[in-house]
Amino acid sequence: MAAVLPPEKLSETHRPTLDRALDAIRSRAYWSPHPEHPKAYGEDGVPGSLGPAEGKAAFDAVLNTRFDLGQPGTDGWVGGETSPYGPKLGVEYPHVDPDVLLAAMRSGMGAWRAAGPQTRALVCLEIIARINARTHELAHAVMHTSGQAFVMAFQAGGPHAQDRGLEAVAYAYEEQTRTPSAADWAKPQGKRDPLRLHKSFTAAGRGISLLIGCNTFPTWNGYPGLFASLATGNPVLVKPHPGAVLPLALTVRLAREVLAEAGFDPNLVALAAENPGEGIAKSLALRPEVKIIDYTGSSSFGDWLEANARQAQVYTEKAGVNTVVVDSTDDYRGMLSNLAFSLSLYSGQMCTTPQNLLIPRDGIATESGTKSFDEVAADLAEAVGKLLGDDARANGLLGALVNPDVKARLEAAPELGEVALASRAVANPEFPDAVVRTPVIVKLDGSGPADGAAFLSECFGPVSFAVAVDSTAAALDLLRRTVREKGAMTVGAYTTSPEVESAVEEVCFDESAQLSLNLTGGVFVNQTAAFSDFHGSGGNPAANAALCDGAFVANRFRMIEVRRQA
Amino acid sequence: MAAVLPPEKLSETHRPTLDRALDAIRSRAYWSPHPEHPKAYGEDGVPGSLGPAEGKAAFDAVLNTRFDLGQPGTDGWVGGETSPYGPKLGVEYPHVDPDVLLAAMRSGMGAWRAAGPQTRALVCLEIIARINARTHELAHAVMHTSGQAFVMAFQAGGPHAQDRGLEAVAYAYEEQTRTPSAADWAKPQGKRDPLRLHKSFTAAGRGISLLIGCNTFPTWNGYPGLFASLATGNPVLVKPHPGAVLPLALTVRLAREVLAEAGFDPNLVALAAENPGEGIAKSLALRPEVKIIDYTGSSSFGDWLEANARQAQVYTEKAGVNTVVVDSTDDYRGMLSNLAFSLSLYSGQMCTTPQNLLIPRDGIATESGTKSFDEVAADLAEAVGKLLGDDARANGLLGALVNPDVKARLEAAPELGEVALASRAVANPEFPDAVVRTPVIVKLDGSGPADGAAFLSECFGPVSFAVAVDSTAAALDLLRRTVREKGAMTVGAYTTSPEVESAVEEVCFDESAQLSLNLTGGVFVNQTAAFSDFHGSGGNPAANAALCDGAFVANRFRMIEVRRQA
Repeated sequence: MAAVLPPEKLSETHRPTLDRALDAIRSRAYWSPHPEHPKAYGEDGVPGSLGPAEGKAAFDAVLNTRFDLGQPGTDGWVGGETSPYGPKLGVEYPHVDPDVLLAAMRSGMGAWRAAGPQTRALVCLEIIARINARTHELAHAVMHTSGQAFVMAFQAGGPHAQDRGLEAVAYAYEEQTRTPSAADWAKPQGKRDPLRLHKSFTAAGRGISLLIGCNTFPTWNGYPGLFASLATGNPVLVKPHPGAVLPLALTVRLAREVLAEAGFDPNLVALAAENPGEGIAKSLALRPEVKIIDYTGSSSFGDWLEANARQAQVYTEKAGVNTVVVDSTDDYRGMLSNLAFSLSLYSGQMCTTPQNLLIPRDGIATESGTKSFDEVAADLAEAVGKLLGDDARANGLLGALVNPDVKARLEAAPELGEVALASRAVANPEFPDAVVRTPVIVKLDGSGPADGAAFLSECFGPVSFAVAVDSTAAALDLLRRTVREKGAMTVGAYTTSPEVESAVEEVCFDESAQLSLNLTGGVFVNQTAAFSDFHGSGGNPAANAALCDGAFVANRFRMIEVRRQA
Repeated sequence: MAAVLPPEKLSETHRPTLDRALDAIRSRAYWSPHPEHPKAYGEDGVPGSLGPAEGKAAFDAVLNTRFDLGQPGTDGWVGGETSPYGPKLGVEYPHVDPDVLLAAMRSGMGAWRAAGPQTRALVCLEIIARINARTHELAHAVMHTSGQAFVMAFQAGGPHAQDRGLEAVAYAYEEQTRTPSAADWAKPQGKRDPLRLHKSFTAAGRGISLLIGCNTFPTWNGYPGLFASLATGNPVLVKPHPGAVLPLALTVRLAREVLAEAGFDPNLVALAAENPGEGIAKSLALRPEVKIIDYTGSSSFGDWLEANARQAQVYTEKAGVNTVVVDSTDDYRGMLSNLAFSLSLYSGQMCTTPQNLLIPRDGIATESGTKSFDEVAADLAEAVGKLLGDDARANGLLGALVNPDVKARLEAAPELGEVALASRAVANPEFPDAVVRTPVIVKLDGSGPADGAAFLSECFGPVSFAVAVDSTAAALDLLRRTVREKGAMTVGAYTTSPEVESAVEEVCFDESAQLSLNLTGGVFVNQTAAFSDFHGSGGNPAANAALCDGAFVANRFRMIEVRRQA
């Protein structure tokens, strides 16, 4: 049977997008093929896409159903997602027998390898396009698993995640095609005939790739590994966080649909859901068939994977302690409002949210004179308070706390030091059971050993520390120590001094951290844009990989050479 | 003080070579800037190079001296190299205090990083050019540490090693420059002004790179890691095999000389020699300053490094069991003479030498009829015997056994099965103490469990097994099992059947092994050419890295982004 989606049709549709993506990763200028405004979808929007009402209806229709993917090796049904906004999702997913499923996943690998880098990339782009068309549905799924507010779930869980997936495909394609598929080699031998060989080079995937998803950004953190592995020839088994299965289950369904239409084995992408507490990630990660693992989550399990899943290439994003050095500014209000937004967005539940704001004890220079440490802390508290003063706006920015652990950390934070800004509960009229909280800011002493224990641990959630340091130099020392020992996904700094700017840069170069300088407008330290910004550095303890670079894709396949006498 | 070698001078001299190297890794056609004929050096040859007599004199002059590199942290002198050809070298090298030396090595890292990818690449090319000019000297050093015959020591230890170093520099340069050094990013905001950021991207080395050298190919296996790390901004500490210090010590001296002339800290490259049995590789490998390790040697220590040096990126080339599948041929004599050469070259002491020749029990089809298993084994034995019948030629091909362990394995081999070809001792008139031996070929049964224990272990040295298998299909099963369980640097196959050819290819794609098909002329399965052939796949147990590809360089540095509001 001929494929519904033959390579030439895929090429006509998607090759121009791939080329634009390849240009973008080379120039690192702004680019995205995925509109981020909800109104851009539906009638008169992205062709074939679901509009707001259709997306909501599609989401509602999947609730309280059995999500049958037709996978081999299904030995039961599991599910137990509860929205951080209150409702139970009631969706049941296939539970798998890995002995059956992994074997089935491997059987399609030869044809997928033989398809070559371009066809694999184009199939991935078709999958991403199908996902994009259902962004409204996915937005509800992300919202009701992560607790993100709708607009963020729509943008970060939709177009921005799709951008990161496409970026990974572009890197994967480029990496595989750096070596030509064939070469003729002729080595001169003086007066004798040259030695001649014909050589072929085939990008061969390593084996099954395991994606271990997270609760807070199931698609944004999941798509890079999923598409990097699939585009480089590997089947991908998706093991979502038990609290955030639906966004990845919807993704797997679309991937399987496209693979089948393009004439490939749909089992190249499969889902492995689990009962809460079952811990199948651990046993899957040690299977000999699993050669690649992508993981986002706690440092303890990430470190365990790196140490124990020795048969696999392991890519981790773990926890870090993000720091902002506040030395001086010529736009004090801009700095405060920028920081206030960064601390508030998704209740600080981003791996990129600043935790420690290092502020010299004697104050900082601003365009309106020196501001003391206490003034900066108080003014920042006021800025956050104003930003979140209106409950509707607060709900739109904060979203809901993803789980009770976050709430517990938030509630324990005032015991750590003097509270500069207390957290308050925000009522959500649409979802009365949602736990919505504004951030707490606690003042700590950068020289105090007891305080150090607090600010040198990751306190995931809406908790930040205004840390008094002896000087900017002391702030840089603490920054260096924090990144080296604890890792960091982001570093921010505010300074009007070129010397301080250079010194912060040197620390970030030395310790491998991504730096945002003097952000006072509409870009925030916790946001990175695909095709232009690297997410994490892969060089400090917060993550062993960056999204996305050559290192993220180059070891997901091996280039196999066959040489013959010519 | 102005540098003797400013960037513009380096660029004038070496940028064209770098561009040619970049072209070569993209086309994978034949290319080398390093002549491989000994006569191409000296007067009328490579400008400024040592001729044969000068090279020998330079080598002789270094014997029985103290090799002072002027390194910080030198706390004694060590050395005890004995040539496999007999003479003691009598050279003393600095023994180091790592607390002092590692700190000194790190202090030059900032300026080396700031120099940028192009200047780093050009400095590396100047080092390689200086090495190339002293190829005759290095050839003697390689010969009298590895036991290679002079011509091989000259070529593999000289121009071919230099090619591999240059190839690594080209990959490193390309990888670092895939991301531009700066980008302006403007994100449209509908009717509002776009969001604008200025971004800079800096390739930052990870930290100290440790090269753990091997005894048999100190330069060929050492240069890729050395130059990949140096070109990506990392200081390199060279820890040679205690039996093969001199080639790398000469290399380190030249690197330090060039670094200083170019205005950089010479301690960016340093030597760590040791007393025999001291085992400093283990303690150095666990130092927190060491972020990258390149290693060639035994699987046991390679596996230990991968498991324990968790703070570092670890690139290993370990042991494997190389297989040749013999199914059929239309050039029986060509096949035999090609295999005979492969088994004989450097007494089988190459990581790429075939060990197991899988031959169907019922024989193989050839242009002159079916040849039985016994006939093939006997004819191959005869071909080897003829190739090495003349002692002068045998000495030129075989070199000397590198150490007593190899000799012991060779002497024990006849106990493993029926001997198809016995080893013989070859007298070396110039070096009467050299242990020169022709290869042994032992017949084994591919179905015999006892025999399996023999042919499924690496028997490093001039020992090969003619393994009788039930069929070509059985050979392919055994090939698959061997590569998967034991690893392989090379796979060879002889067949006239397109179906068998495809089947062998599929095994190599599945199990990640590099394949040479039907070699009957002047190219041998155990040789790979830089810029065109990959050495190892990095995807089976014999090695976790290939020479050279993107994966070999991409994680030696991290790309650090600094973004500022525009």
